[in-house]
Formats: sequence, C-alpha cells, structure tokens
Amino acid sequence: MTDNAILLTSCPDKRGLIGTFSNFVFEHNGNIVNLEQHVDAEEQRFFMRLEWSLEDFALTRSELPNAVEQLARNHGMSWSLHYSDEVPRMAVFVSRQSHCLLDILSRVQSRELAVEVPLVISNHPDCRPFVEALGIAYHEVPISADSKAEQESRIIALLAEHNVDFVVLARYMQILGPEFVARFANRIINIHHSFLPAFPGARPYHSAHERGVKIIGATSHYVTRDLDAGPIIEQDVIRVSHSDSIEDMVHKGRDLERLVLARAVWKHVQRKVLVSGNRTLVFT
Amino acid sequence: MTDNAILLTSCPDKRGLIGTFSNFVFEHNGNIVNLEQHVDAEEQRFFMRLEWSLEDFALTRSELPNAVEQLARNHGMSWSLHYSDEVPRMAVFVSRQSHCLLDILSRVQSRELAVEVPLVISNHPDCRPFVEALGIAYHEVPISADSKAEQESRIIALLAEHNVDFVVLARYMQILGPEFVARFANRIINIHHSFLPAFPGARPYHSAHERGVKIIGATSHYVTRDLDAGPIIEQDVIRVSHSDSIEDMVHKGRDLERLVLARAVWKHVQRKVLVSGNRTLVFT
Amino acid sequence: MTDNAILLTSCPDKRGLIGTFSNFVFEHNGNIVNLEQHVDAEEQRFFMRLEWSLEDFALTRSELPNAVEQLARNHGMSWSLHYSDEVPRMAVFVSRQSHCLLDILSRVQSRELAVEVPLVISNHPDCRPFVEALGIAYHEVPISADSKAEQESRIIALLAEHNVDFVVLARYMQILGPEFVARFANRIINIHHSFLPAFPGARPYHSAHERGVKIIGATSHYVTRDLDAGPIIEQDVIRVSHSDSIEDMVHKGRDLERLVLARAVWKHVQRKVLVSGNRTLVFT
Amino acid sequence: MTDNAILLTSCPDKRGLIGTFSNFVFEHNGNIVNLEQHVDAEEQRFFMRLEWSLEDFALTRSELPNAVEQLARNHGMSWSLHYSDEVPRMAVFVSRQSHCLLDILSRVQSRELAVEVPLVISNHPDCRPFVEALGIAYHEVPISADSKAEQESRIIALLAEHNVDFVVLARYMQILGPEFVARFANRIINIHHSFLPAFPGARPYHSAHERGVKIIGATSHYVTRDLDAGPIIEQDVIRVSHSDSIEDMVHKGRDLERLVLARAVWKHVQRKVLVSGNRTLVFT
Repeated sequence: MTDNAILLTSCPDKRGLIGTFSNFVFEHNGNIVNLEQHVDAEEQRFFMRLEWSLEDFALTRSELPNAVEQLARNHGMSWSLHYSDEVPRMAVFVSRQSHCLLDILSRVQSRELAVEVPLVISNHPDCRPFVEALGIAYHEVPISADSKAEQESRIIALLAEHNVDFVVLARYMQILGPEFVARFANRIINIHHSFLPAFPGARPYHSAHERGVKIIGATSHYVTRDLDAGPIIEQDVIRVSHSDSIEDMVHKGRDLERLVLARAVWKHVQRKVLVSGNRTLVFT
Repeated sequence: MTDNAILLTSCPDKRGLIGTFSNFVFEHNGNIVNLEQHVDAEEQRFFMRLEWSLEDFALTRSELPNAVEQLARNHGMSWSLHYSDEVPRMAVFVSRQSHCLLDILSRVQSRELAVEVPLVISNHPDCRPFVEALGIAYHEVPISADSKAEQESRIIALLAEHNVDFVVLARYMQILGPEFVARFANRIINIHHSFLPAFPGARPYHSAHERGVKIIGATSHYVTRDLDAGPIIEQDVIRVSHSDSIEDMVHKGRDLERLVLARAVWKHVQRKVLVSGNRTLVFT
Repeated sequence: MTDNAILLTSCPDKRGLIGTFSNFVFEHNGNIVNLEQHVDAEEQRFFMRLEWSLEDFALTRSELPNAVEQLARNHGMSWSLHYSDEVPRMAVFVSRQSHCLLDILSRVQSRELAVEVPLVISNHPDCRPFVEALGIAYHEVPISADSKAEQESRIIALLAEHNVDFVVLARYMQILGPEFVARFANRIINIHHSFLPAFPGARPYHSAHERGVKIIGATSHYVTRDLDAGPIIEQDVIRVSHSDSIEDMVHKGRDLERLVLARAVWKHVQRKVLVSGNRTLVFT
Repeated sequence: MTDNAILLTSCPDKRGLIGTFSNFVFEHNGNIVNLEQHVDAEEQRFFMRLEWSLEDFALTRSELPNAVEQLARNHGMSWSLHYSDEVPRMAVFVSRQSHCLLDILSRVQSRELAVEVPLVISNHPDCRPFVEALGIAYHEVPISADSKAEQESRIIALLAEHNVDFVVLARYMQILGPEFVARFANRIINIHHSFLPAFPGARPYHSAHERGVKIIGATSHYVTRDLDAGPIIEQDVIRVSHSDSIEDMVHKGRDLERLVLARAVWKHVQRKVLVSGNRTLVFT
C-alpha cells in the first residue's frame, strides 16, 4: 500500500479542465485512483477531487505544491492538497450530554477513525472521568455571559497550542463567537438534533412532537455566523409515531445524532467535502 | 371470511376503559381481531381503534350504533363506527401534473385500493383522456379569482350528487376555501412535495436545492384552513446530493409524492387514522 | 438545450486513460458534462461513463463511431455510444398482476420516462383493457409446456418486428429460454419480489414471513440463464413487523416492486448501468 | 413517577382474553398504561404485553405473581412478570473487534441504557484496557478446540456468580455450545453482520460484494442451536454501490452492527420482545 495525494480544487468552468489535470498526473507518472467532478451549472463553477497514487510519482511532496500552484494560476483555481497518510488533529467540544462524545472517541479508540484527539473542551465537568480514562486531556472552560470573550480566547490559545486542525461540536451548547468561527472556517462540524431547516434552535424534539411529524432527523453542518444555517454535510432520519413521547424521540434521536456526526467527520477526514457558497459537495 | 366492525373512539382518560369496551364485545359474542389504544399524556385523553369479527355477533348493524351510543354517553366519548366491507367513495382533484392521479387510479384499477371513484375534478383539461379511458367521469372546473366562490359551490354540489366520502388532492394547485374545508373536515387528503414543516409553499424543491439539504421529502396531511399546516398522516424521504439538479429532485420527489399519498389514502380507508388536535394517530 | 453524446466503455486498467478520453473530447471542441469512472481493483479493469455536449463538437454523429473505434483499438476497450435524444423502444411483459405494468405505463404516459412502448406481451388476458385504453398493442401469447419454444419464437419475432431495444418483465411469471436471454443479454430487466439473494424462487413473501424477518425487499436485475441470479441493478426495502400478515407483506411489497423496477428502468434508459461480470455499476 | 408492572403472556386464542386481563387490572385499582396484543392466526395463539401503573394498585409485588398464576391456570397461559424499575444484569462477550462493545458500554455509561454490566468476557486480551478504564471486570477466557467444554463451564460459573440475566454477543467469534444456549434460552442476543437469511456464516461482506448487492444489512437475533438461524429481533440496512470496496462495506456495516445490536438490547430490556416459535414479536 502506497500513499495517495488528494487534490481538492474549484475554478470557473471551462472546456478541457479534466484533461489538464489528468494529464498533469499522467505526465508525472502518477496513477489516478479516483476522480470525481461536479459542475455547478448556476454558478458556472467546476469542482474536482482528484486522488492519485504516489507510487513512482515523479514529484516529491515538497515539489508538488509548486507544480500545482502553476497549474492553478493558469485557471484561476483555488485548491488544497492532502495526503492519505495524514492524521488530522481533532478537538471535541461537549457540554453535558455525553453520547456523541463517547461515540466519536470510541471510533478513535477502535481505530475506525484515523485522527489524533489532543484534547476535549467542555463548559461542564460531567464528561471528565470518561475522557481522562481514555488518556485524553479534558479542559473545563466554563462560559458565562461576562466571561465569554475571554474564555473563547483561552480556547483559541489551547487549540493553537495543540495544533488542532478541526473542531467537532459533539452537542456543545454554546454559540461560538464570530472571531472563532472565522478562524476555523469550514473546520468546525456541528451536530444539530433536527432535520434542518425544520426546527432550528434549542428544543427541536419538542417542536417536532408538537407539529406531529412522522419522521425526525439530525443534521451535521459546518458552523457559520448564522446559527444552524451553515453548509449541511450530512442528514439522516428515523420514523416516529404518535406513540413516541418526547422522551422516546430524544432516545431515537440520539442514535441519529451519533451517526450523522460520525459520518460527517468521516467525510471531512477523508477530504471528501468541498464547500460551495452555503452548500457542500460530498463525494462518494 | 366474515366482516368486521371497526370502532374509532376517544374520550377523557380514566381507569377501566379498555375493560369496558372489550367486555362489551365479549358479552355480545364478538371476537376482538385487533385492539390499538393510545393515551395522550398531555391531553389526558384516551384513543382506541377496536376491530372485532361480526361472526356470531349478537347485535345487527342496525342495533349496534344505539348500543355504542349508550356506552359513549357514560364516558363522554366521541366515536365513529365502520365496517370492513364498506367501499368508500373517493373524489380525486388534480391540476396539470398527472403522476399522483395516475398512481392512485392504477391502484384502484388493480383492486389494491378498495374505493369507488365516481369522478375526477380538475381546473385543467390535461388529464382528461387518461381518466376517461378508465371509464371515470372527468369534470373540468376552471378556477379564476373571480369565479372561485361560484366554482367551489359547483364542486361541492358535484361531490354531494356523487355521495363522495372523501377527497384526495393529487397535486391540485388551488387553495380550497374555508367553507369547503369545514364541510370535509379530516376528509381531504393533500400531498405536499416537501418534508413539512420545512419548505411549505409553492416551490419546495427550489428551496431544498438552495438550502443544500441532503434529504428531500413529501408529506401527506389533512387539509385545514392553514396552508400546509394540517395534521400530518404520512411522510417519507429520499437522499439527494450535490449532483442532483432541481430537475433531478423533482424526478426523485415524484416517487415520494406518489408513495406518501397512496399510503395516507390507504390508512384513511382502513380507518386507521384518528385526529387529535393538529396531530394524527396512525395505527399499524 | 443541445444534445449530449454518452460513451460507456471499459478496458484493462492502465495509466492515462482518463486523460486520453478527456483530451479526445477537448480536441474536438466538446465540453464534458459529466465523467464517472471506476476501477475494479480485483479485475484490474477500468470503467467509464463520459457525457459531453455536442454543441460546437467537431465530429458529426456519423463520424463519431469511427473516431471512438480508433481510440478503442489502442486500448483494448469495449464501448457503446448513445445520445441523450434517443428514445429507446421498450416492450413490457406481464402475467396477471398489473401493478408494475400500470406503474411503468403511467410513467410513460406522464412523460416522466422517455421511451416508446410499441407493445405489451402477456400470457394472460387480464391486463388487456387497460393497456388498450392507453392505445398500446396487447399481444396475448399463452405459454404451456408444449408450446413454450414455439411461442418464444413468436415473441422474438414480435420484438424484432417492433424494433424493441429492451424488455421489462413487470411480474412476468414465465422463465425465458436461454436463446431469448442470450439475444437480449443485459437488455431484459426483471423485478423479483424479495431482497435477493434472500428468498429466490416463487413465494418469497411466504418465506420471509416464515423466517420472521423485520425488513422485506425487492430486487431488479438483468435476466441471465440462472434464475434470480443475474446482475442486480437496484434494491430497496421496507420494514415489516410481527403484525404484518403475508397479505400485508404482499401489499407493502407491491410498492417496493413498482419503485425498484421503475428506478432500474430509469437508470437503464439514462445509460447509467454497466455490467461487469455478474455485477452492475450504476452511476449516479 | 411511580413504577409499572409489565406482564408478558401468551395462550391459545379465544374470546374474552383482553377483557379478562384488563378487568383484572381494573378490579385491583390499576391503571393500564399500555396494552399491545397480537393474534398469530396460523398458530391460533394470543400474545399480549400489558403494562399498568402500580400507583394505588391493590396487590403488592409479593402478592401479584400468585394472582397472575390463578388467571393463567384458567387459560393455559405462559407468562412472565416484570417491573419498570428493574435493572437487568448484562454480560457482554467480545472477541477482537471492539466497536459493538464500546458502543454498548458507552450507552450504559451515558445512562441511556439502564443495565448493570458486572463483567465482560473475551477470548482475547485486546479490549481489556478500555473495559477496565470504565471500572468493569474483564475476564479473558481463551477458547481452543480442546479447552472449549471446560472454558464454557467456567463462563457459566462466572455468569452465575455475577447473577447475570442476559448475555450480549458483541462480535463474539465463538460458537456457544448447546448446553450454554439452552441455559440462556431467549437471553443471548447476537449481532450478525448481514441481512439474514442472506449471507450467514463467516464472511458476509465478502459474499455481499461478490454478489453485487446494492444494500447491506445487519441482524440481531436470539441465539439458538442453529447458527445464525435464531429468532430475529431487529434488522437494518444501508445502501452500497459498485464504488464500495469490501473495506468500505465493513466500515459502513460497523454502524449498522452497533445500531441494530443496541436497538435489540433496548427492546429486550424494555421487555418488549416475545418469542413465538422461531420468530419474535417486538412491540412498539
């Protein structure tokens, strides 16, 4: 098994783009493992995820970015380059409810999810024992209206100190400030416990019960300045009936939350998510 | 195969209700085939669907309503009584898009759905040939802002003339007036092409595409005075991705619309739907 | 809206294939609308569906096949070429149960499915009235053990006479002979009323009920000489419970059968299905 | 919140059974919270789950069994009686793969699943650190062909010592002997990584990949003497495509295995599962 390079790119659509990139790989003796492209017809914009094997590839990892940048200039592309052997560093934020946190850490523990978790941050002490039992540092950073700005600076410092690549909000019940959000644009993944855009806000299961819906959902999205309105990465649903109380919905919903968050993190880590405006492209 | 009686009932919750009703059936030599009950804990209200075989049952169909009414008086119940051999009379309303109409008529044609369809009503001529080929009367009743009240009276007269029990709006793009809705309370079934309460109104697939959701849905509900806000009977969903254009969503959505409407009509005809406030109970 | 060309191709995997094809389109002034590829790692075989706009394309439809063939020779490719404005000619075979037939013809009727249906063939008279009401020829070809070979020849002649491109078995309860199957290889689409490979054969709902499964399914596949064992195109499932009788399963299953068959036909007509050994690739 | 009594019962079907039981509760001043019944029409057998509030109930927990037994004798019933405040004692068996174990222990940890876990048993050392970090005893009981009988006796002794009520096989890759199975009849819950009855045995994802199915599944069932053939409690599925390798299927399947096992355990603990022959009734 050799490693692969992964190029995520987008640019104004025009003829010949796929040929340009596939020839680039071919001419440097790379073998394309996977190519997925999409043209946003309204925006006239081209998106691509190109993955190729580095076995016998003519360029080293230090040479590759320059070569890509040259291509990019000719086509007005934005791009990012990744490698299949990278292990991203993930911070998890949690409040009191532990189910998403435990699920995601279990996946790290069983090596199903190839990330490093240098720290967990919480505004409550509840989840500390379990996290520390796994040998992960638990930073309790309580937030009040007065302390919010200061505490967020402290959190940002912690993330910098631990070289965190992206943040997972595993039922973190605090709204992050705009500075924080801007600093981690498209790198903060939240789980919302409803099928957005239905039932945004604080008590979606209560609202779902009151409306009498027959299906409830969960939504994972990148965090933007607009609450519960960022680009959706993944959603899933489950049937409910009149016999489900709000507590039953909460119970069923927990499984959705775990699953939808885990799938979004998985896609993010696989470098299969591209953001286009307020929407995502999620490759297969 | 003998026929069954079906009693739908609700009343303030108290102890002993199930015993009262099951004894009533037993004492008249009936055999309970199915009993489903539900207590709405917030409303403190009891709901039940009781189905029993009429083989050897001591009361005739003409005696039964009085006997039930006596029970009902003692408990402050509202109730309705049905028989498994009844064939309800269904009118279908349609505008231009024929897919839901064709689907529901095909189900009648293949005897999968045991209803009579005395007439189809439309504000457009498009679907006439197919409907008439099936030997069903097609009444074109065009609606304009000026003619609306008058034409609705005409429709009401048509429904009365044909002894219509309930109405199915198979993508009927007109809003029914309050008098009509009141006259057929809980007897008008609409299909809305979104996962309500997300994307009510006229162009849900456009809204879904713009928001970038990963799942789209359809919702069948009883029509009330509030547009797209009546009691939900059935919902279902299907996955979409960034590669689905609005046209693709419309295509996928048609299957949902057909299916969700057909299931709602089926449950209604089976007398398995009870309305409680703005929600439904749908028994299995 | 201009038309597109669609090239389906497969060949032994090697470096540079995507570049070769995308350059071919680019050099003739075509614009790639969609490219999907797949490498079967075990078989070391490359598969691709390439769709490009013919607007300003340098080659005419009469020149294109030769140009593709030249490319193909260099790479040992098998290929087929299609155009988005083609309207394939579909024959539907049915026995007594009409639900899949009615569904598929309704889709043609509402122009959701862009095919011509020159004829329906059945070994029973039951579905004749509905089919003829739609203005489609209905050929009753009864099959007995003695007449089978002769009647199949008659059917083959009918299909030839009507220039039929592919055949849909919409609950056709006869096993087609090997000559017929060979003649329409990967062009006969069957619907089987179980989640294959579970419950092949004649009475899958009975078997499912007896085994006590909690989910039932339907499977659409290309017909091969091995009964219920051809390449699967599409499957879907629905939940059942202990309270579902066999009749309930049959009822729920009908919706699956309709839907799964319609989706398979849709994908086939969109030229999105490629067969690889006994499996299919179904592009998005 | 008061506690409830839960009566699970079955007997030959006859008229008046529901009345008998609901009157029994009413006459002792109980309030029925939930009643679900089912008649197996083929077996002519009646099944019921009756749950009533013990608030003001006239019989104590020590008196209730005798009172139920008297009823039972008259009707040839088998029955079991439970209380909503019982906390069952669950043992988890695991081999090397930890994902189902971690999931189920996380649910206990977050108090989503109200059980005691006195011990985990494994034929491998791999999962020890995580289990012990949670403060749960980990017993490594390696199994070889020679030691199997002896080691199973040791396991049975451990379960007895810890008063274990039921056993969860969380990807335990050993076949339990008939004595063990008989001792814990309908109290051993296994997760199989396929949509049974498709793909029983050891390598279901390989088989699914080879057959080219478009949907994979997982199945949770009670363990019987026949491998992978016991009464099914819960199943679920997920879509796969040609682009999913066997490894991708394994990855997707893990989520199914976790979820399907957790749901089956939840239903079992809620006393909502009744076994009838080789099938289950799972109440809502």
